[in-house]
Amino acid sequence: MEAAFLQAFKGENKTVPVWFMRQAGRYLPEYQALKKKHALQEMFCQPELAAEVTCQPVDILGVDAAILFADILTLPSAMGFEIHFDSRKGPVIQLMNNWRQAHDFEGLDYVAGTIRLARQRLPASVPLIGFAGAPFTVLTYLIEGGSSLTYARTFRFLQEQPEAFDGLMRLLTKNTVAYLRLQRQAGIQAVQIFDSWAGILPAVIFARRVLPFVREIFDALEGLPSIYFCRGSAHLWPYLIQSGADVLSVDHTVALDAPWIRGMRQGLQGNLFNGLLYADHATLSAAVHQTLEAARWQPRYIFNLSHGVMPDMDVEKLKAVVRQVHAYPWKEKKREDLALHK
Amino acid sequence: MEAAFLQAFKGENKTVPVWFMRQAGRYLPEYQALKKKHALQEMFCQPELAAEVTCQPVDILGVDAAILFADILTLPSAMGFEIHFDSRKGPVIQLMNNWRQAHDFEGLDYVAGTIRLARQRLPASVPLIGFAGAPFTVLTYLIEGGSSLTYARTFRFLQEQPEAFDGLMRLLTKNTVAYLRLQRQAGIQAVQIFDSWAGILPAVIFARRVLPFVREIFDALEGLPSIYFCRGSAHLWPYLIQSGADVLSVDHTVALDAPWIRGMRQGLQGNLFNGLLYADHATLSAAVHQTLEAARWQPRYIFNLSHGVMPDMDVEKLKAVVRQVHAYPWKEKKREDLALHK
Repeated sequence: MEAAFLQAFKGENKTVPVWFMRQAGRYLPEYQALKKKHALQEMFCQPELAAEVTCQPVDILGVDAAILFADILTLPSAMGFEIHFDSRKGPVIQLMNNWRQAHDFEGLDYVAGTIRLARQRLPASVPLIGFAGAPFTVLTYLIEGGSSLTYARTFRFLQEQPEAFDGLMRLLTKNTVAYLRLQRQAGIQAVQIFDSWAGILPAVIFARRVLPFVREIFDALEGLPSIYFCRGSAHLWPYLIQSGADVLSVDHTVALDAPWIRGMRQGLQGNLFNGLLYADHATLSAAVHQTLEAARWQPRYIFNLSHGVMPDMDVEKLKAVVRQVHAYPWKEKKREDLALHK
Repeated sequence: MEAAFLQAFKGENKTVPVWFMRQAGRYLPEYQALKKKHALQEMFCQPELAAEVTCQPVDILGVDAAILFADILTLPSAMGFEIHFDSRKGPVIQLMNNWRQAHDFEGLDYVAGTIRLARQRLPASVPLIGFAGAPFTVLTYLIEGGSSLTYARTFRFLQEQPEAFDGLMRLLTKNTVAYLRLQRQAGIQAVQIFDSWAGILPAVIFARRVLPFVREIFDALEGLPSIYFCRGSAHLWPYLIQSGADVLSVDHTVALDAPWIRGMRQGLQGNLFNGLLYADHATLSAAVHQTLEAARWQPRYIFNLSHGVMPDMDVEKLKAVVRQVHAYPWKEKKREDLALHK
């Protein structure tokens, strides 16, 4: 039988599938144990380690899908952008005097190796999701030299050097497509593209300067179940539904049952506010229920958070969320809804 | 005759008033000249210097209002929170082991002095806007120890220590009210409250845990023209209109002519995307025109940016925006609109 996560793309699932953004990572004691023995870079680059981290949350939390453990900067690193990791500051990017020296990526076979190993280890009922940053979000890291509070450099680059901006977006898009094809060939069964910083743009600029590249990626992946995650989803909504992704993953700015959301043709993923994982069990459980109820009009729905799991979050709470989502009478609810509309 | 900026609160202005968030600051060569001679802390705390910085953009740009040059952390500093400024990192906040040691603010007479001096120097046609951070935004700085990418500490504090969270919000609210009364007594003619980080919260949590405190502040300032600026305004809209402010200042996530915006009873301020100040004159000018056209249904409208002016922005472009806004035939447009609706 097909996995519930993949069934959800067709509305054929009996229970709601659930996974968490950043589910492979620091909040897990099992991950911390590995990290004591290995540098972060090793954990990303050694297939044996990366596959282990990829599979950990499946065994521990009981989620319905695994996601490839990789960094959002893996791709640009392999394209000639100099990036090193600082344990305190996070990624530090050496801005190239001329980004045109960047080239098509080289040497990402270890990612394929990770995927093959993880796929071997995962049960058949748990699909593996491929991972890539969206071109604009990757571009912001390259232009800002990391994260930013104002994104002044990105805005300036976009406006003052429109051809260079488009050129870099094209180069990143082309390589993202090739990178995801490599992942597909190695065995991923779905893909999620992360556009964490798209929300810093107004809708009109997003539509003209960012969306066409996102579409190009999803078009090139035809046939592979696909998810587009965008932070600041609400104001970009009229354009997100044109992204070409099968499922849209939305953050806390979207009410799942808002009238304009209910008009979508795509599937929906989200959006339990991640800050609620610090709440007591009763509050958390009420919010999980509310999220499920708000999504029940949608035949193709996957449960997830608004943003990622934080390093200091409690594993037991994530387990409780998974149990509650699985116990929710999805199929029965659907029958009930249909009866109501007759 | 009353200043255009104050007339706009009543819909009696003939031209559109314009000012810019962060108009007093680093992008101005005149500010840089002062900064070479004085430490930042001096510039905030010496009325003579702070008043000069407050008035600079009025003379240089020709904006319709000045805003008090003060830091968002001025108030918590005076309440016993230890904060020092690092020239590279910005404000560094010493987290108190027990924030309950904080007290009602002391020693902010220099703010009153700045206001009196600035008021003396400003022409009668240019009102002075008072300034304070909203309690939630100030709280995030205190809890995170500065800015944050994830706001994990804030979310945790809000959920795990609800009474402490509410207690700190109450203390900040009480002091913000007193601080703004001090500003009012010294001569401010309007006030803007900055809630730069409210958008990190989902609407429901904002409504329950943040909005009541914002309302309390605006209620206490009855009679003083008031503006509430919120980043991430779109998803909070149903609650922003309950804030008690006379005018709502919105960011790039709001389309000024969206149907749900047109239902508002308040005045509107905003929202030229600040990134467009890096664009060429033709692009910038088209965007300014579009913003004005999108706002023309609104009888009480003030032109501003989505977020603040950035340090590397071009003074000439800001001047051009001011000229264009002032040249826009607002009153004639209004007559034309009325004729259309007869």
